Amino acid sequence: MDTTTINFTINNLWIMISIALVFIMHLGFSALEVGLARSKNAINILFKNFMIVAIGLLTYTISGFNLMYPGFEESSIGIFSFSGFGLTLPENGLTVDYNGSFTYWTDFLFQGMFAATAATIVSGAVAERIKLNAFLIFSVFYVGVIYPIIGSWGWGGGFLSKMGFYDFAGSTFVHSVGGWAAVVAVILLGPRLGKYLADGSIKPIVGHNIPLAALGVFLLWFGWFGFNGGSVLSADPATVSLVLVTTSLAAAAGILAAFITSYLKFKTYDITMAFNGALAGLVGITAGADLMSPLDAIIIGFIAGVIIVFAVGIVDRLKMDDPVGAIGVHLICGVFGTLAVGIWGDKGVFNTGSFTQLGTQAFGIIVVGITCLITSFIILFAIKKTVGLRVSEKEEKQGLDIFEHGMNAYEDINLSDND
Amino acid sequence: MDTTTINFTINNLWIMISIALVFIMHLGFSALEVGLARSKNAINILFKNFMIVAIGLLTYTISGFNLMYPGFEESSIGIFSFSGFGLTLPENGLTVDYNGSFTYWTDFLFQGMFAATAATIVSGAVAERIKLNAFLIFSVFYVGVIYPIIGSWGWGGGFLSKMGFYDFAGSTFVHSVGGWAAVVAVILLGPRLGKYLADGSIKPIVGHNIPLAALGVFLLWFGWFGFNGGSVLSADPATVSLVLVTTSLAAAAGILAAFITSYLKFKTYDITMAFNGALAGLVGITAGADLMSPLDAIIIGFIAGVIIVFAVGIVDRLKMDDPVGAIGVHLICGVFGTLAVGIWGDKGVFNTGSFTQLGTQAFGIIVVGITCLITSFIILFAIKKTVGLRVSEKEEKQGLDIFEHGMNAYEDINLSDND
Amino acid sequence: MDTTTINFTINNLWIMISIALVFIMHLGFSALEVGLARSKNAINILFKNFMIVAIGLLTYTISGFNLMYPGFEESSIGIFSFSGFGLTLPENGLTVDYNGSFTYWTDFLFQGMFAATAATIVSGAVAERIKLNAFLIFSVFYVGVIYPIIGSWGWGGGFLSKMGFYDFAGSTFVHSVGGWAAVVAVILLGPRLGKYLADGSIKPIVGHNIPLAALGVFLLWFGWFGFNGGSVLSADPATVSLVLVTTSLAAAAGILAAFITSYLKFKTYDITMAFNGALAGLVGITAGADLMSPLDAIIIGFIAGVIIVFAVGIVDRLKMDDPVGAIGVHLICGVFGTLAVGIWGDKGVFNTGSFTQLGTQAFGIIVVGITCLITSFIILFAIKKTVGLRVSEKEEKQGLDIFEHGMNAYEDINLSDND
Repeated sequence: MDTTTINFTINNLWIMISIALVFIMHLGFSALEVGLARSKNAINILFKNFMIVAIGLLTYTISGFNLMYPGFEESSIGIFSFSGFGLTLPENGLTVDYNGSFTYWTDFLFQGMFAATAATIVSGAVAERIKLNAFLIFSVFYVGVIYPIIGSWGWGGGFLSKMGFYDFAGSTFVHSVGGWAAVVAVILLGPRLGKYLADGSIKPIVGHNIPLAALGVFLLWFGWFGFNGGSVLSADPATVSLVLVTTSLAAAAGILAAFITSYLKFKTYDITMAFNGALAGLVGITAGADLMSPLDAIIIGFIAGVIIVFAVGIVDRLKMDDPVGAIGVHLICGVFGTLAVGIWGDKGVFNTGSFTQLGTQAFGIIVVGITCLITSFIILFAIKKTVGLRVSEKEEKQGLDIFEHGMNAYEDINLSDND
Repeated sequence: MDTTTINFTINNLWIMISIALVFIMHLGFSALEVGLARSKNAINILFKNFMIVAIGLLTYTISGFNLMYPGFEESSIGIFSFSGFGLTLPENGLTVDYNGSFTYWTDFLFQGMFAATAATIVSGAVAERIKLNAFLIFSVFYVGVIYPIIGSWGWGGGFLSKMGFYDFAGSTFVHSVGGWAAVVAVILLGPRLGKYLADGSIKPIVGHNIPLAALGVFLLWFGWFGFNGGSVLSADPATVSLVLVTTSLAAAAGILAAFITSYLKFKTYDITMAFNGALAGLVGITAGADLMSPLDAIIIGFIAGVIIVFAVGIVDRLKMDDPVGAIGVHLICGVFGTLAVGIWGDKGVFNTGSFTQLGTQAFGIIVVGITCLITSFIILFAIKKTVGLRVSEKEEKQGLDIFEHGMNAYEDINLSDND
Repeated sequence: MDTTTINFTINNLWIMISIALVFIMHLGFSALEVGLARSKNAINILFKNFMIVAIGLLTYTISGFNLMYPGFEESSIGIFSFSGFGLTLPENGLTVDYNGSFTYWTDFLFQGMFAATAATIVSGAVAERIKLNAFLIFSVFYVGVIYPIIGSWGWGGGFLSKMGFYDFAGSTFVHSVGGWAAVVAVILLGPRLGKYLADGSIKPIVGHNIPLAALGVFLLWFGWFGFNGGSVLSADPATVSLVLVTTSLAAAAGILAAFITSYLKFKTYDITMAFNGALAGLVGITAGADLMSPLDAIIIGFIAGVIIVFAVGIVDRLKMDDPVGAIGVHLICGVFGTLAVGIWGDKGVFNTGSFTQLGTQAFGIIVVGITCLITSFIILFAIKKTVGLRVSEKEEKQGLDIFEHGMNAYEDINLSDND
């Protein structure tokens, strides 16, 4: 066996492992969202998150992969050619070299696992009042069409990549793409009943299973080793291991910053803020995880951890009801992380980034943001005017689980009201 | 370091990672079964599933590995030679090349992790009324003797493999082996109290922790990357990545199919059916995961997802009380998946399988089925006549946790009756 | 690409995967501790375990890594040089070869993930009554200074390694380092209210979520594949696969032994003892996982599984209130495992260890033990006299979650008193 084949095998192996790691992020998202919502809607949230994996992979097969990476495969026949796979396995057996580093199948599945996360991000923000079918229809279009087209601008060789816009693993192309749609969805849906009271006060609606939410955050971090580490697209020891270090240190610094900031602000040890701090650090480092020194990563994670504490409060005061803080984490920290590439992204804190790069980053953020806002509005508004977006008041009060699913999440556990 | 050694190292690495992935399936099974049962039996179910890992690995050491792969190791001294390990480490140090792709230890542990799953499958079907010691005794014999002997017919170079019977990763040798025993056990045990009423109606007994069940399904899928991916027995990029793609697409299609079918049938969004759909797709693709095109995989997964919705209902109407749907998922979809090799298994949907192959597959299914039915009957009947199979009526009503384990699963959480 | 680079890449890949596996052990510890404690303290326990990851990684960056592996990096400027990383990325790009097997970043992160576990072990023992800030301050000093200095004696080329003391993956340097501090902390803190009654009887305080605890144990075992497997510090097929086999068989034998022992002793199937048996076997094999034959591993695991049943009882009768059995598992089995190297550690049960080795092992245990007892006492006593160690009686009774965190772990689930 020659060294080229061996090298190909190693790179492919790492991306395959990353596939499994990114996959388990879907459990992470599910557990976090369920844990931070009320027990009466737990099944509904699980159902959405579980279906999204199926929808994500299947739409990515039908259209997403080809839309996102156009022209890679000569033999693909339009967008319905099953991602260029054709309808049968290749004549020449299975030696489907994609780009010298891994196989076509590996690339497809890694990217497909990413695709579904964009919709999952939205899922958290719209929890506890969106109609299930409305959400599923939205997901089909957003994951199957919008996400890959926007992604192609950067990762498929499109105009943003040609301009020098840099988004290593998706602060913009994944997290903010989900986050912008979350903003639109939250506004079109309106807040949960009883969240914003007539006297202007805001009622906290508390999650019902914090250990489950903690499990979700741990698994998201675990999965991020593949999300960022696999985005190196090879097993190159120096780059991948640097990425794991920057990713982990940003998360750690995010926790510390959110802990300190929320303690100073609220005089309590708010565990949901510690969770958010970790996720903020992770989202913040994602755009430049391969460019930063460990110290850069700590700085970026720390700033993201401070930002998230204020972001969650600001989103709430704007009466955008986001049960899990998805807009703060994925959109605001996604934007910050993308800008961070322009600020620190020149490999070392004393070699600061450039204003030119910062401008390019800002331009990319704006282009992607406008596109997401418009397209998600069109999709969601069309759904609102046809099948409807929101469950009935009665259903929302009694819980979506009984109405849409005919079941309780915890059949023989006594639950109290938590309106 | 020469390329042969390096190649050996890579292949070995992938199988070792697969070991960890298959191991975590035991948590997946545990969580799924506990979540779908009642809280009063949660510890009992966990206890069974936890002990099975220990029993599986230890019996596989004592007898299983040597029974399943006879003749591979010259130095092995009969079935009690600790899997050919002998009693000390080899004289020549640790360079125990197994088959040119990985070490003897790696193979042993990968296969050992598989072995325990067969008993775990039974565990779900017999939950909430089997005596703990009865189940443990059954596991020792079924995992330590029956599973490896049957497996040797296909994977150990036995007569089924010589006939051309094809079962890539165990739709038959793992899933149906568990499933057939589940049928026997369920019949010998009888249904849970109150499940089938005097007036002929069937009372649904609802699981107590759906988020935990969801976690179980996610982890099973996660582990399946190693279950199927590791069954390639090398890190060959094309084959392993194809297997991951077919595995994931089958699961996704299974979810979609079960979602649609159960909605059409019951007019509700039944999350347990979505779970079953994923597992059905995974079991269905397992026999031919390396032979199918992505489109084949979608078709197979989709059909399995339709099958499972009807299968669960049929098993129930036959008054075989299977709390977690193990018979539908592992036996019926295992049989379907094995047949699917004969139908689509020629690499591409337009290159359909052959009738000859289909016949061979059916023959293997029947031979394995008869063997499992007879042997599991002998073991379980002997247990029934000696230590007894079923707990007392009083114990079943009050819950096995208090009686057999002296504990509640949720000590300070208020539980309601769920008979 | 030359074979040296490829070999480097493979070794690095395995250690990176081990990083992810060791990371997820933190979720394992969290889930186990939360599950075995009362619901009123669940958030507090999660908070500690979550913060520890951040504190562990950040202190390891600032001081730990350089203290533990002194002299490896010429360019490091004292202990605050961010682990020898310097403040910018190296001039020569990212080719930071650490020791011919993996990169500097990989080593840092793998060791950093280990560091935090020492404090996590203490966390379990002090649960349900320690003040949050007291624990966090303790963690900073113990993980940032004490753990790495002690570790340097063995793993950083210090005097214990020169004497021939052998601790493969940390029965002593990780588990007993945590365990000794747990002893000191438990004594300084005193038992939970109502644990030891005036009449001399001991009141069991029962965990509130056994499925969560089970998840924790499964994940710890899962992570141990990286903890022990990664400690080979290469992907060498024979050694790593042997380590995975000995690790798994020791865990399995530990379960079996604890099951039998606790059944003989208590006439019940105590699931927490089965959990402890697995962990006892894992801790027990850790010091010599690369030296033992499979049969040795079974013997060691079995003995550890017997020990733990008695150890938990003895610790309790000494009125050291350790809610999760951390002292028994990590200290007592850690000591046993370290001694086991001297007893069996010569590759094969018939090639027994040597008295000389046994003496060296005992010497190392004593030196580390004394150091841990003194240093943890100094830190904890200083905290006790300043910020205080223990929450108020009122807070302990009502639960730490409401007082320190202003939240309930299960907001809309009805809980009963469990004092």
